[in-house]
Amino acid sequence: MAFGWIDEQAELRGRAGLVRTLRPRPADSPLLDLASNDYLGLTRHPEVTEGAARAARTWGGGATGSRLVTGTTELHAELERELADFCGFEAALVFSSGYAANLAAVSALAPHGSLIVSDAGNHASLIDGCRLARGTTQVAAHAEPDAVRKALRTHEGPAVAVSDTVFSVDGDAAPLAALARVCREHGAGLVVDDAHGLGVLGEGGRGAPYAAGLAGADDVVATVTLSKSLGSQGGAVLGPARVIDHLVNAARTFIFDTGLAPAAAGAALSALRLLRREPERAARSRAVAGELHARLTAAGLEAVRPDAAVVSVRAPSPEAAVRWAADCRTAGVVVGCFRPPSVPDGISRLRLTARADLTEEQIAHAVRVIDETRP
Amino acid sequence: MAFGWIDEQAELRGRAGLVRTLRPRPADSPLLDLASNDYLGLTRHPEVTEGAARAARTWGGGATGSRLVTGTTELHAELERELADFCGFEAALVFSSGYAANLAAVSALAPHGSLIVSDAGNHASLIDGCRLARGTTQVAAHAEPDAVRKALRTHEGPAVAVSDTVFSVDGDAAPLAALARVCREHGAGLVVDDAHGLGVLGEGGRGAPYAAGLAGADDVVATVTLSKSLGSQGGAVLGPARVIDHLVNAARTFIFDTGLAPAAAGAALSALRLLRREPERAARSRAVAGELHARLTAAGLEAVRPDAAVVSVRAPSPEAAVRWAADCRTAGVVVGCFRPPSVPDGISRLRLTARADLTEEQIAHAVRVIDETRP
Ligand SMILES: Cc1ncc(COP(=O)(O)O)c(C=O)c1O
Ligand SMILES: Cc1ncc(COP(=O)(O)O)c(C=O)c1O
Repeated sequence: MAFGWIDEQAELRGRAGLVRTLRPRPADSPLLDLASNDYLGLTRHPEVTEGAARAARTWGGGATGSRLVTGTTELHAELERELADFCGFEAALVFSSGYAANLAAVSALAPHGSLIVSDAGNHASLIDGCRLARGTTQVAAHAEPDAVRKALRTHEGPAVAVSDTVFSVDGDAAPLAALARVCREHGAGLVVDDAHGLGVLGEGGRGAPYAAGLAGADDVVATVTLSKSLGSQGGAVLGPARVIDHLVNAARTFIFDTGLAPAAAGAALSALRLLRREPERAARSRAVAGELHARLTAAGLEAVRPDAAVVSVRAPSPEAAVRWAADCRTAGVVVGCFRPPSVPDGISRLRLTARADLTEEQIAHAVRVIDETRP
Repeated sequence: MAFGWIDEQAELRGRAGLVRTLRPRPADSPLLDLASNDYLGLTRHPEVTEGAARAARTWGGGATGSRLVTGTTELHAELERELADFCGFEAALVFSSGYAANLAAVSALAPHGSLIVSDAGNHASLIDGCRLARGTTQVAAHAEPDAVRKALRTHEGPAVAVSDTVFSVDGDAAPLAALARVCREHGAGLVVDDAHGLGVLGEGGRGAPYAAGLAGADDVVATVTLSKSLGSQGGAVLGPARVIDHLVNAARTFIFDTGLAPAAAGAALSALRLLRREPERAARSRAVAGELHARLTAAGLEAVRPDAAVVSVRAPSPEAAVRWAADCRTAGVVVGCFRPPSVPDGISRLRLTARADLTEEQIAHAVRVIDETRP
């Protein structure tokens, strides 16, 4: 039977306790959220939701076509200008998702005959970008500039190193300055995914490349998502204007995809302006992360010291992690639960996000629940 | 220098006259639009834009996380139920774009050791899905079930045939019933992309699989976009519940992508309900396409007889196509212009979309302008 093999896989998953199910949430949940990527607490902010509503009314429900045909509005152009300016890059190009932006950046910047050196902890979308690219990929040990250097040495011709700035699972930061040095030694480009850095790291949340003094460099390209700190949907590639022009002409997920919906562009633009006006939100998310870490550690839990706004807590096994997260939810606190096959190292963990708008009481309460439900 | 090769490519493109540039449009354009994929004229409909605005206010600017973590709302579930029901499938799964839905459907349904038979005219997102899949791809001659049969004969083990239902460039329809027969002979699955069929083909716009009597079959999976007839952004995979459950567990662009923004889900749901209430919109878009074709042909232009709502007009060369489209724009009519490398067969053409809300005067005017500006 067609698709018969699916049932075997489903059974294996069931026996291993690895079945994933969707749990639709209501509009007003009484649960305390430490699982979303809404780092700055902006997705429900009235300025952001009004930005979405106004854009839908002004521009319509959708972009109506590829951005090269009818799908580019003045709103998209405005968002691109303000994003580039805020993050310190020459130009920006907006995509329908961060995933699509990553597919574009990696695949269009690694032509036939080129080398991609990809960090072992990179996000799925960067990995898929490597697989779509015509160049050859070498995976480098996690966060080791020396491994990148060794890989680059093996190759003549165009090359790029590709890395998350903040790794999504453990929340640790990449050694960006060292990576850039290694790339420059070899004339290679550096492509970094700042999905979890924008809005959190750098002065006023300008992101990890800005914080590392790399924003605007002619050999550095950054991708960001509009779906985390900016509380919306979409993604963007930031870089030199000539790289952005190249993507307009060569990136398949740009050329053959409908433009980002106006409402999403409007929400992201409103969030960006809010962040400019209230830059302390970025520092606050980092402070919340630090406090979560300190309290979890004080309670004897094994938490990774956060470099940004993600706090990861080790669990003894996949089953224990799932049960722990479920017990937290029963006690009113929603936490993320990462386990194989979504974690590169096979280690299961709870993943907490440090929203800037969490209060002291909420932080204390969350840690108490996590501690009391520990396996 | 890093990214140095980009400048050479840019120069080649410049000399070949193939440079693509973005042209941001204002909110209220006086131009007559025959280029967008807003087939039913719904993207500016107040019910649709209010659907977006209301969803943003109720649910926030973004989904805040992967649909497996915090990104599934009751709104997403509602949209999935109504989409599946409308199109005649057991279940549906919503993605952040049609592109992402296609990457998911193809790559997750073609495991290691399987065969994908892909139509030579398929959309870029299906092609990228083939490249991400672990199975092996054979490209079959365009719209030839016999070519698919031949390819399937060469293979033992799981197999899928993959095809657009309506090809995006020429607007011609795939021979779905014959394809399904061939697949069944070989126990292969059939994956069809109904991006340009939903809202246009089938009773009340239920789509090409419904029209072909294939909706709900246990060996047929359809993908749709929310960005064309439904005037929004996003995509969905429709199929048997077991296939949908498999995607929830295995599709990387589902698991590792932020959920569709509530505003986009809300706009699409409003458009779907509107279409249910006003099913004549689907027939009207087909009638407009027929009339465009008849008038263009009467004027001596070489237009492909439309199977859905896309009307393609041949141009003598890429340069002539670009000039033709530019002259139409100067005369107030926006048409699409497809040319290498975006066309699989190397033939340049104007691409017109037959919006259901075009008036008789607008159709006559558009054809007059296209005729008067012909190369
Ligand atoms: C590091 C990283 N990059 C890219 C993405 C994809 O971005 P988006 O969800 O906006 O498509 C995500 C998460 O979703 C991520 O965590
Ligand atoms: C045939 C086809 N499939 C898929 C897509 C991708 O859908 P979306 O633009 O909604 O991502 C498109 C167009 O954009 C298309 O024409």
